[in-house]
Amino acid sequence: MSYTAPVKDMLFVLKELAGMDTVAALPGFEDANLETAQAVVEEAAKLCGEVLAPLNVEGDRAPSTWRDGEVTATAGFKGAFRQFVEGGWQGLQHPLEYGGQALPKLIATPCIEMLNAANLSFALCPLLTDGAIEALLTAGTDEQKSRYVPKLISGEWTGTMNLTEPQAGSDLALVRSRAEPQADGSYRVFGTKIFITWGEHDMADNIVHLVLARTPDAPEGVKGISLFIVPKFLVNEDGGLGARNDVHCVSIEHKLGIKASPTAVLQYGDHGGAVGYLVGEANRGLEYMFIMMNAARFGVGMQGIGVADRAYQKAVTYAKERVQSRPVDGSASQSVSIIHHPDVRRMLATMRALTEGARALSYVAAAHSDHAHRHPDAAERARHQAIYEYLVPIVKGWSTEMVNDVTSLGVQVHGGMGFIEETGAAQLYRDARILAIYEGTTAIQANDLVGRKTVRDGGAVARALLAEIAGTIEALGKVDRAAAASMGAQLKKGAESLANVVDYVVANTKRDPNAVFMGSVPYLKLAGIVLCGWQMARALLAAHANRADDPAFHDAKIAIAQFYAEHILPQAGGLEASILAARNGESALAMSEDQF
Amino acid sequence: MSYTAPVKDMLFVLKELAGMDTVAALPGFEDANLETAQAVVEEAAKLCGEVLAPLNVEGDRAPSTWRDGEVTATAGFKGAFRQFVEGGWQGLQHPLEYGGQALPKLIATPCIEMLNAANLSFALCPLLTDGAIEALLTAGTDEQKSRYVPKLISGEWTGTMNLTEPQAGSDLALVRSRAEPQADGSYRVFGTKIFITWGEHDMADNIVHLVLARTPDAPEGVKGISLFIVPKFLVNEDGGLGARNDVHCVSIEHKLGIKASPTAVLQYGDHGGAVGYLVGEANRGLEYMFIMMNAARFGVGMQGIGVADRAYQKAVTYAKERVQSRPVDGSASQSVSIIHHPDVRRMLATMRALTEGARALSYVAAAHSDHAHRHPDAAERARHQAIYEYLVPIVKGWSTEMVNDVTSLGVQVHGGMGFIEETGAAQLYRDARILAIYEGTTAIQANDLVGRKTVRDGGAVARALLAEIAGTIEALGKVDRAAAASMGAQLKKGAESLANVVDYVVANTKRDPNAVFMGSVPYLKLAGIVLCGWQMARALLAAHANRADDPAFHDAKIAIAQFYAEHILPQAGGLEASILAARNGESALAMSEDQF
Repeated sequence: MSYTAPVKDMLFVLKELAGMDTVAALPGFEDANLETAQAVVEEAAKLCGEVLAPLNVEGDRAPSTWRDGEVTATAGFKGAFRQFVEGGWQGLQHPLEYGGQALPKLIATPCIEMLNAANLSFALCPLLTDGAIEALLTAGTDEQKSRYVPKLISGEWTGTMNLTEPQAGSDLALVRSRAEPQADGSYRVFGTKIFITWGEHDMADNIVHLVLARTPDAPEGVKGISLFIVPKFLVNEDGGLGARNDVHCVSIEHKLGIKASPTAVLQYGDHGGAVGYLVGEANRGLEYMFIMMNAARFGVGMQGIGVADRAYQKAVTYAKERVQSRPVDGSASQSVSIIHHPDVRRMLATMRALTEGARALSYVAAAHSDHAHRHPDAAERARHQAIYEYLVPIVKGWSTEMVNDVTSLGVQVHGGMGFIEETGAAQLYRDARILAIYEGTTAIQANDLVGRKTVRDGGAVARALLAEIAGTIEALGKVDRAAAASMGAQLKKGAESLANVVDYVVANTKRDPNAVFMGSVPYLKLAGIVLCGWQMARALLAAHANRADDPAFHDAKIAIAQFYAEHILPQAGGLEASILAARNGESALAMSEDQF
Repeated sequence: MSYTAPVKDMLFVLKELAGMDTVAALPGFEDANLETAQAVVEEAAKLCGEVLAPLNVEGDRAPSTWRDGEVTATAGFKGAFRQFVEGGWQGLQHPLEYGGQALPKLIATPCIEMLNAANLSFALCPLLTDGAIEALLTAGTDEQKSRYVPKLISGEWTGTMNLTEPQAGSDLALVRSRAEPQADGSYRVFGTKIFITWGEHDMADNIVHLVLARTPDAPEGVKGISLFIVPKFLVNEDGGLGARNDVHCVSIEHKLGIKASPTAVLQYGDHGGAVGYLVGEANRGLEYMFIMMNAARFGVGMQGIGVADRAYQKAVTYAKERVQSRPVDGSASQSVSIIHHPDVRRMLATMRALTEGARALSYVAAAHSDHAHRHPDAAERARHQAIYEYLVPIVKGWSTEMVNDVTSLGVQVHGGMGFIEETGAAQLYRDARILAIYEGTTAIQANDLVGRKTVRDGGAVARALLAEIAGTIEALGKVDRAAAASMGAQLKKGAESLANVVDYVVANTKRDPNAVFMGSVPYLKLAGIVLCGWQMARALLAAHANRADDPAFHDAKIAIAQFYAEHILPQAGGLEASILAARNGESALAMSEDQF
């Protein structure tokens, strides 16, 4: 089971769709041009293909194990993690002053995609560490930053996010863990946290847990939650490791997938209290945690795209090798490789179209984030930030929903062999299934899209994007080829559906929240389909313009864009109809609990 | 993890939609009225709920094991199988003269549904045995029938289907196993068969393998395949067991799901040749195997419906218990059970609408099968047979595709707990994934739907069904309620899409097979959505008419039908667009192998 990062496709998106040049023109990114991007991406591709991808199957067969409170990672993971951090990959996006490389998010994004494609279980550890670093850089004191961040970037230590408790999943108002202030300014933390990814392991010397808990005088609900650093080993003044802290892994979960990634139940304070340090101000923990979560949500979207691409590659390889049945058009009298069968082509093209659309949208989102951070003009920064924030729930929600379909098609292309674990297609199907759940389920993303991202600005960002789409449709009209005509027609219909839904959401959320929120996930999917379709349209235009350079490559881009137009975009109308139908407040909303 | 057969829902479908009364009026079914059906279904529900359902989790945790050629079923399975056969359940549909109960398929169908819901791995053994019985009854000699069928019905022996070989999956033209004639009229069989469900086990004294192989003088391809009986133990003249035959289980597969069901690799003839007996005429094996496969395909559709219903029940139970977050409409200041959240309702209603639609269509198909076998008028028999044959690939293909979505939603409703194996939602997701693959993948069903079921009769059966749908739409127009209006409007659109696609398929399959077959699976899905929607419309009408009897029950039927109309039927238009778009022959069809 091999994986080759699609470097050429990635660079196409960076250059033609995400505006690598404009990002490289931002202050501080002067050296981050397309050549840099290419060099970084190619180097990452080597590590992912040669070191991390081969360990993926092994992690599934021989997951991380728990014994007496200690977790041993799958054989080979520790060494791979050393290669990863020694290559500087943990610091890709982080500041130079703490040992990072300060590259644009746009360059880091393809690296994150391929890391997740190569080995999703492995990639979770750096992903969580990235989140811890961002939270500390935003809300930590200078002393906390200099104490923890360099070690997290160097990979001597790793980071975790501790939100969930048995009774508090999506609903953080229910968090009960408590933190008692001590005379020396530190706290003692008590409570049980579950679903803590890489919450215990042997790949690094220390683990920096970032933990949500309540101080004794805190208000109820989400406004009474504070964020604490709780290191597994206390850190001495000289930065060396001190005593073992009172946080212990009492078990790890037996999961459907990502089995190499230990999902820990952590017990805080059973032996007197875990020493913790407040991050930022008390009662603002949720706000800081959202910094981690927003970064992590985008990262989880990339996980979906990475796993989808790997499933596509695997299915294509099998479809070229497996010989079965004669062609339906009678063009051969012998059985042929199944890639010649129209339905197999439909499946492969669906997988690829969904993956390429989501990749393009996510890289474009990453570029907006870079502009939001670095653009010299404040108004432009705000504009880009608003677009990025609109896109994050879509990148997370849509990429993780589509990967379930893509990995399922990957199984289907393999026929009966797809159901046999040794084939490897089933692992991708299992691994992918967590992505639409963790870091906020699709419904949570959709509620965010409705509430904070659409209603709050009266639909302004959504309509600004729709105006850009109109420009793309106009450009398609000037290209004389069937693919452009198909795309123009279907993108227009899709954009109209999205516009109608945005108007409906803005007008009705306050008046009839139940009806609107019954359509929130369909709205997210509609937005994903249309916005990714828009990127496919832009890809079609770019491929058409650059066709002469490399006809086979660009013709494939055009063919897949056309497939997207004809097979994915037509779903928009059905989603619009479902969303608007909820207005009558009947059907599922009218049923009593007992009627289910 | 419990399961309660939805007896009331099942009886509603039998009575109101599938015409139990008209089936009971057929010759030979005089005693098979609604009361009989109710008694049988309730008795089956007890066995399934009390005995088989509790073993389902155990089968996943401790699958069947292989050792030195012998397979031991999960603890408890052998005893449960005894209870199953002693209750007479294996003989439900089979003739009285061989020890069966000769009940209509319409009464057997809900029993099969609940058997699969309770324990899919277990249910596969009787399913395959049913297929072996049907093949022997159709093509076997009287001596073969009396020798094997009574023991298969009594459960002393079980049956298997041996088609697949490593190089021959969907493509049976590639079968290489060979059968050499002997002086005594028997054969010696040699070859390797894979994916043989319950191909070896300890639940019965003997296993009757039905095996496809070639005789030495057979023509190439599918016209040179014959069917052989190869018993695990040879059968003496007195019916007792003789010598062990030369068929051996060399391994069982490590699978994504249905782990309790051993999937055997069987080696025939490594020690001189396995003794086999020709069934029917030489070179007609594929035809006989299709008898088994058609019965099995309908049965696999029922597996999809059963597993979907179990996933729905499980999700509803969790959604009523799990407390998380305040309502979006501000109607409570505390967190509530998640069934109050609109998106959870959307998920549950989607699961239920898909399951109820597929159930209704499959029971209606079963009734057509009964009429096809027993109707006194030959023309009516032929008419019902043609409808049944049109519906089989849809029941199989659509029910097994929708169950992937339904079990995925089941995981999603459970949030993070859904990804933890102990919860049980993940098992249903894994188990279900084989259903769209075995007994012919969805593409194989779709090719059957296009070729044999639509093109061959020029779309006659499809159009006859569309004419019936038009009658239902007219009836909906006479009911003054919003649900009927929604259903009438959406069913009309859906039926128009289906009609357009049928016309397109009939007109273009010969002229442009690649384009049509790229749309074959979308056509199958479109047909599934519209025909199940039609049944939901009929359910709505029946519930409206009978509302006074039991308002809560019938109002729920109406609400779910409305949900189906507003959330499932609107997908029809997008499918139609995709199918018709392939006419231009571009996108995925135009790509070279290297461009993938």
